[in-house]
Amino acid sequence: MRTSQYLLGTVKETPADAEVISHQLMLRAGMVRKVASGLYTWTPTGLRVLRKVEQVVREEMEKAGAIEILMPMVQPADLWEESGRWEDYGPELLRLKDRHQRDFVLGPTHEEVISELVRKEISSYKQLPMNLFQIQTKFRDEIRPRFGVMRSREFIMKDAYSFHTTQASLEATYQAMYQAYCNIFTRLGLDFRPVIADTGSIGGSVSHEFHVLAGSGEDDIAFSDDSDYAANVELAEAIASLDAAPAAARNLEKVATPNAKTITALVEQFNLPIEQTVKTLIVHAADDDGKPSKDLVALIIRGDHTLNDIKAAKHSKVGSPLQFASDEKIREVIGASPGSLGPVGLGIPCIVDRSVACLADFAAGANEDGFHYFGINWGRDLALPEIADLRNVVAGDPSPDGKGTLGIARGIEVGHIFQLGTKYSDAMKVGVLNEDGKHQNLIMGCYGIGISRIVAAAIEQNHDQYGIKWPASMAPFDVVVLPMNMHKSARVQEVAEQLYADLRAAGFDVLFDDRKERPGVMFADMELVGIPHTIVIGERNLDEKAVEYKNRRTGEKETLKIEAVIEFLRQTK
Amino acid sequence: MRTSQYLLGTVKETPADAEVISHQLMLRAGMVRKVASGLYTWTPTGLRVLRKVEQVVREEMEKAGAIEILMPMVQPADLWEESGRWEDYGPELLRLKDRHQRDFVLGPTHEEVISELVRKEISSYKQLPMNLFQIQTKFRDEIRPRFGVMRSREFIMKDAYSFHTTQASLEATYQAMYQAYCNIFTRLGLDFRPVIADTGSIGGSVSHEFHVLAGSGEDDIAFSDDSDYAANVELAEAIASLDAAPAAARNLEKVATPNAKTITALVEQFNLPIEQTVKTLIVHAADDDGKPSKDLVALIIRGDHTLNDIKAAKHSKVGSPLQFASDEKIREVIGASPGSLGPVGLGIPCIVDRSVACLADFAAGANEDGFHYFGINWGRDLALPEIADLRNVVAGDPSPDGKGTLGIARGIEVGHIFQLGTKYSDAMKVGVLNEDGKHQNLIMGCYGIGISRIVAAAIEQNHDQYGIKWPASMAPFDVVVLPMNMHKSARVQEVAEQLYADLRAAGFDVLFDDRKERPGVMFADMELVGIPHTIVIGERNLDEKAVEYKNRRTGEKETLKIEAVIEFLRQTK
Repeated sequence: MRTSQYLLGTVKETPADAEVISHQLMLRAGMVRKVASGLYTWTPTGLRVLRKVEQVVREEMEKAGAIEILMPMVQPADLWEESGRWEDYGPELLRLKDRHQRDFVLGPTHEEVISELVRKEISSYKQLPMNLFQIQTKFRDEIRPRFGVMRSREFIMKDAYSFHTTQASLEATYQAMYQAYCNIFTRLGLDFRPVIADTGSIGGSVSHEFHVLAGSGEDDIAFSDDSDYAANVELAEAIASLDAAPAAARNLEKVATPNAKTITALVEQFNLPIEQTVKTLIVHAADDDGKPSKDLVALIIRGDHTLNDIKAAKHSKVGSPLQFASDEKIREVIGASPGSLGPVGLGIPCIVDRSVACLADFAAGANEDGFHYFGINWGRDLALPEIADLRNVVAGDPSPDGKGTLGIARGIEVGHIFQLGTKYSDAMKVGVLNEDGKHQNLIMGCYGIGISRIVAAAIEQNHDQYGIKWPASMAPFDVVVLPMNMHKSARVQEVAEQLYADLRAAGFDVLFDDRKERPGVMFADMELVGIPHTIVIGERNLDEKAVEYKNRRTGEKETLKIEAVIEFLRQTK
Repeated sequence: MRTSQYLLGTVKETPADAEVISHQLMLRAGMVRKVASGLYTWTPTGLRVLRKVEQVVREEMEKAGAIEILMPMVQPADLWEESGRWEDYGPELLRLKDRHQRDFVLGPTHEEVISELVRKEISSYKQLPMNLFQIQTKFRDEIRPRFGVMRSREFIMKDAYSFHTTQASLEATYQAMYQAYCNIFTRLGLDFRPVIADTGSIGGSVSHEFHVLAGSGEDDIAFSDDSDYAANVELAEAIASLDAAPAAARNLEKVATPNAKTITALVEQFNLPIEQTVKTLIVHAADDDGKPSKDLVALIIRGDHTLNDIKAAKHSKVGSPLQFASDEKIREVIGASPGSLGPVGLGIPCIVDRSVACLADFAAGANEDGFHYFGINWGRDLALPEIADLRNVVAGDPSPDGKGTLGIARGIEVGHIFQLGTKYSDAMKVGVLNEDGKHQNLIMGCYGIGISRIVAAAIEQNHDQYGIKWPASMAPFDVVVLPMNMHKSARVQEVAEQLYADLRAAGFDVLFDDRKERPGVMFADMELVGIPHTIVIGERNLDEKAVEYKNRRTGEKETLKIEAVIEFLRQTK
């Protein structure tokens, strides 16, 4: 491709409304243009990257035995009514009416359409397992689209759905998809982690997310420094060795703390280690249905920890959804303000986090405004209450698999695999005759990859102050031929044209920057666009029949004989 | 691909609701499945064909210098308000509201979005001409979707838009697109014709449609037997040599024709040649704005011809849109019924078709119920009125380019190219600074191909009673390896597996029919699906290290040495 016949679309200024670096760079490198909130046109450079990602995903899905199909984007509402999601799905589901006033949706996902296909097409267990995928445009009417294509409304997704008669078969396909996803992200040159995930509103039991690690990620991931263990922080188990509680060394002491209404203030004013303090959080207890009742229950975690709402809400004694007691209610029941609460003499049921159960000589509110107890010890001063895992893990916690220590990293979710079970096949009656000749509803898995989001995530992970540094497999072009002042030198032009032709013939995806621009402008543009290899052709080197090579990722420069360029790039690629 | 691990989805029965053969065969061959009216899922075999068509289109577009982008399917209404089409476009434009009650449309075409892109991205004539294309899902809310993917609501289209500062530049790109389209349909192995077309609601001046010739086509095309001339029948000029009018041989005679209220009845009862009769059609004349007025005008065509509404409405004396006079109005003004009208003594202005001007001794109504004139002659019995081209051409007419004779064929429109002019760039202010440093609105061209429709059109043109006969470039698989009773013969299985592996290694797209089915079932399925080449492996030939080859298109059979199969297919391919 010649730049002069291409829509390069690079921009010098950083766009004002782009918050994250990938969005800024995608606009500046001419990859996308905004059409409306959450709607983008992929301009030529962006589309080239998108197609390369698509192709890697397609190849690995096929290698794993999945079969490609293409479902419509516009879906009839009656299928969503059957599954129950016409009611359950929130306003992200864009509902619309056709000219005959019939209801449709713009597909945010395709469980219903695929279930309808499979219940019509598959009648015998002999045709199973089957894993069908598509690479297709989806629409989710995000309330606040942001970060460019990272959270847009219209986006491209690879979604796959597998169908089984046995859990073992589902698990085998799930494992094959797990491996295919690892292959995909490895081939794309991304630093990623598969993490144990919540199944959320899609339903099902087992689930993994695949995250590209990047500081701008919206999710916190806990991972072991000594094993493959990784989980969304919301789900990572917080371990504490209960044997490790030290013996009591101080007496219980009630101390006036009139100016310590927070843990931070208490710790500062009395020079206490924060790990020796606890926070007492009052929430509504569960009624018989597990919903919040009028009764209260106290959740006690260490002063330096944060409550994990998901874990707390899942506790059988805690009402779900989690509902914190109001200050008035706390004062009415306990007789003290929220800043002065503690387990000693609290008068309502307590659940303590595992790490709190290991404490000795710790400090907590005295349930009397302006007073704390110091030197509290379980067993001696009060009975040890029920113990549970209530907190978010922190860096340095032991890994739940017993191997190594947890670190915390931020990640961008680019893939998600689910063992769905029979949620959709029960609702929509998707079944076959099994080996015993009996009708059985199918067990499903589903497997998504955010194709367009991968492009943004890769940039978050691969850039510097000059622009994007594409991994080779995603780069819009493999190599740029950059002649300096070609329009003033016939010799430079001749070598550049020849090299352009030779590189293309050798199978490289080549951009030939044939513009009448100053070399500085051309260098800056190509670094911004992030093409991995640059061949600079200048008068200076031509007497030696040489050109200059520059590697975008390493910054490495080298002088190469012209005749050696192709072989060099083959080795480096 | 192994059939046992594929979703073949062939069906024996002809689906009841499929009217045309391509729809029937696409359902029976497992290519598509209906999700709702005009909405289809492309199942694996269909998607394979679709992708092959896409790839041919993409390659030829790029070869012609077009650059690929991807615009969103959901488009903001404000762009459509700017172009005026928010009002003008009928109910085929699906309008919808997002969660914030903002108006959007599902894109049926992308002139607005591309114009918005270009007005932001292109500021100088130096960046032009530019031709941008996409291959993308479109939505048109057809009032009556039919014929499967031939006229569906969601479909895949290649749409391209070019931008120019001069008409000469537009014409050069238009010509390049014309050639690219010829290359595409030639590569796809289709019998097609580019035809001169009406520009319709898209606007613009010059336009060509590309039709795949097939009896089930919805359009009539007139084409020369001796030149490249081809046009939609609606547009083809009807030629008549005005010199050719013979001399009068009969006297004018008023004849009682009480039972002849139609041309057919008149011709039968009085044994007249229908070519010697005329029909007199009364329409409303044009007012000062060209709209239908209260005045009437008569259009006179030969008894065996049909009026061409488009030609008639374009005549300056005829009101547009064309409005036929009511029987009451005719009786009030002329004093006779519609079945008894004619040019002699009519009393309102007449326009006669060219072929009518060449008649002598012809018959027409006498403007008196129950009477006709026979032996009418221009000049002698009445003055020759204004002459115009008013009729549809028929087979046997001279070609308008002066070369050969016209035939009429039915065609399926699969492509359409337009010289748009400045319709959109004027409305949306899409301009650049031209060479003179002055602002100028751009001249546009647009170029569409119905990717999904091509698949159906190809089947209309390539099938027999057993199924589809794919042209090589569109076939879902190049070759099928069909072992007979493989599960009873280790030798057959071994040879089949080896050939499957070898053919794939040689770069063929191979289907290995490894099902435990009777050979008859497998043959029937593969003929239905229409794979070009079949290699049958049976015990019978293996002693001679041979297999049987069958060509789907020609029916030709041949016995081949196993070692010669790959080279044979390379030659045949």
